[in-house]
Amino acid sequence: MTQTVAKITTPAQVEEFLAQYDDFLFDCDGVLWSGNHLLPSVVETLEFLRSRGKRLIFVTNNSTKSRKAYTSKFAKFGITVSKDEIFGSAYSSAIYLSQVLKFPKDKKVLIVGEAGMEEELAEVGIQTVGGTDPSLRKVEASDEDLANLAYDPTIGAVLCGLDFHITYLKMANALVQIQNPSTLFLATNIDSTFPTHGKLLPGAGTIVGTLVTSSGRTPVSLGKPSGAMMDSIKAKFKFDAERACMVGDRLNTDIAFGRAGGLGTLLVLTGVTKESELEGEPPVVPAYVIDKLGSLYEYLH
Amino acid sequence: MTQTVAKITTPAQVEEFLAQYDDFLFDCDGVLWSGNHLLPSVVETLEFLRSRGKRLIFVTNNSTKSRKAYTSKFAKFGITVSKDEIFGSAYSSAIYLSQVLKFPKDKKVLIVGEAGMEEELAEVGIQTVGGTDPSLRKVEASDEDLANLAYDPTIGAVLCGLDFHITYLKMANALVQIQNPSTLFLATNIDSTFPTHGKLLPGAGTIVGTLVTSSGRTPVSLGKPSGAMMDSIKAKFKFDAERACMVGDRLNTDIAFGRAGGLGTLLVLTGVTKESELEGEPPVVPAYVIDKLGSLYEYLH
Repeated sequence: MTQTVAKITTPAQVEEFLAQYDDFLFDCDGVLWSGNHLLPSVVETLEFLRSRGKRLIFVTNNSTKSRKAYTSKFAKFGITVSKDEIFGSAYSSAIYLSQVLKFPKDKKVLIVGEAGMEEELAEVGIQTVGGTDPSLRKVEASDEDLANLAYDPTIGAVLCGLDFHITYLKMANALVQIQNPSTLFLATNIDSTFPTHGKLLPGAGTIVGTLVTSSGRTPVSLGKPSGAMMDSIKAKFKFDAERACMVGDRLNTDIAFGRAGGLGTLLVLTGVTKESELEGEPPVVPAYVIDKLGSLYEYLH
Repeated sequence: MTQTVAKITTPAQVEEFLAQYDDFLFDCDGVLWSGNHLLPSVVETLEFLRSRGKRLIFVTNNSTKSRKAYTSKFAKFGITVSKDEIFGSAYSSAIYLSQVLKFPKDKKVLIVGEAGMEEELAEVGIQTVGGTDPSLRKVEASDEDLANLAYDPTIGAVLCGLDFHITYLKMANALVQIQNPSTLFLATNIDSTFPTHGKLLPGAGTIVGTLVTSSGRTPVSLGKPSGAMMDSIKAKFKFDAERACMVGDRLNTDIAFGRAGGLGTLLVLTGVTKESELEGEPPVVPAYVIDKLGSLYEYLH
């Protein structure tokens, strides 16, 4: 390990850390909460940061919820946020399709994923198919269903994210579209797992992986640690990267994302990455590490 | 390409080819049929080979059907075969578990796949869970279903194959088991796609890939081109490898499998591999290539 990691364990270290940054970008799952369980002292820490004049931006690879739906999740935990403080991978995908790709209005995006993706794409005026369509959510696909699958030239892109309702029919339909090289292939994010209920369950990368394996193609990923997502965030929030800190629980997405964007980084140990992984030679290291986000508040109070 | 491929296009070349082999191992999908469509002159070719005293062995990575169920598929096409002429990857897995691993009688195998896997394992006296169990075949898994997933120490192995009824709940349940390193992780086969209805749809490798991506583990594969499968076939049929020929439609499974086992190889162009792929530098080349299996008969009649 060629870079040193500063572990925050005292009030003085918290103050020194806070003095360096004006903007805090937070990963959510594994940092603020784990599944449906709020992590300790998170509400107090966020209120404390706001009271110190810090700006909060919640960056999440969760593609299953739109930003609007995601505010309800915060509210359920007693955290008040506005839709505009949230930057999710479904929104990032919508921005990329509409602003970067100038996706044509007469074409459709086939969604493999949940309602959040449909909602964010609809908000920027992009037509979608698939997604929550019940006709693809059946576990018993008939031989006729499979025989009838065909390339649809009105589908300009396949966007794949985490899909709790994945079926063979969905995989097969999406595969048939991306077997045509002119169909764009995008992923909201490629996290292989996500932390929930104290477990690591299959993440978007596992669903996306079914299309990668079967097609041999690699998608453009619009979630952390993709530079495309960082560029969109910077364009929207216009912060000074050196005065901003990415807070996350995962080395290969959150911390890599912050480092690549030139931001400070804080690893919390309440999610995927364990402290032992910092020993040896991890591919990327955070500038700071702390046992949990809430300790920023607890050490000072 | 350092090795030459002999293309069979004349009656004399057919006779020269046939004179070299006593045993013919056939891949099925893409060689005998494509999905539900029998390929031309296949019945005549198989009868002709039998009339010449050749032994026929049908080797398939299809894990969804047991050998017994697979005989019905042959019968539907007017091909008469006995169960013992068939060697499928579900059977290969059962042989590997019972004979090689001496899988304990008091443990269970969690199946991600179809009835063929359950049937072959039951035939060798191995207890199974999962598979066609309707409680895992639901597309709407509840939050409670996911919260309740837990490592089950009575499950000694996870065996994954092609599953037309894959669900998020199945993936998550299998993942939770193989996250424990003491749980064996086996795959019937790892073909990324399979040919059906004139298309390439997601294969066992795509389903297995969900567990590979999410767990970071690599399974032992019991299908072509695994050496474990070839060893089992040789032990059962006791043929002379030099006098046996593997016939298949796919370079990276069938032809690699035959070559690694020291057999002759014949590529047919009615399935996955296209003739153009033999140009350039493919990782493996067949000894012979023919447009379709049925041409062996047609050229002589």
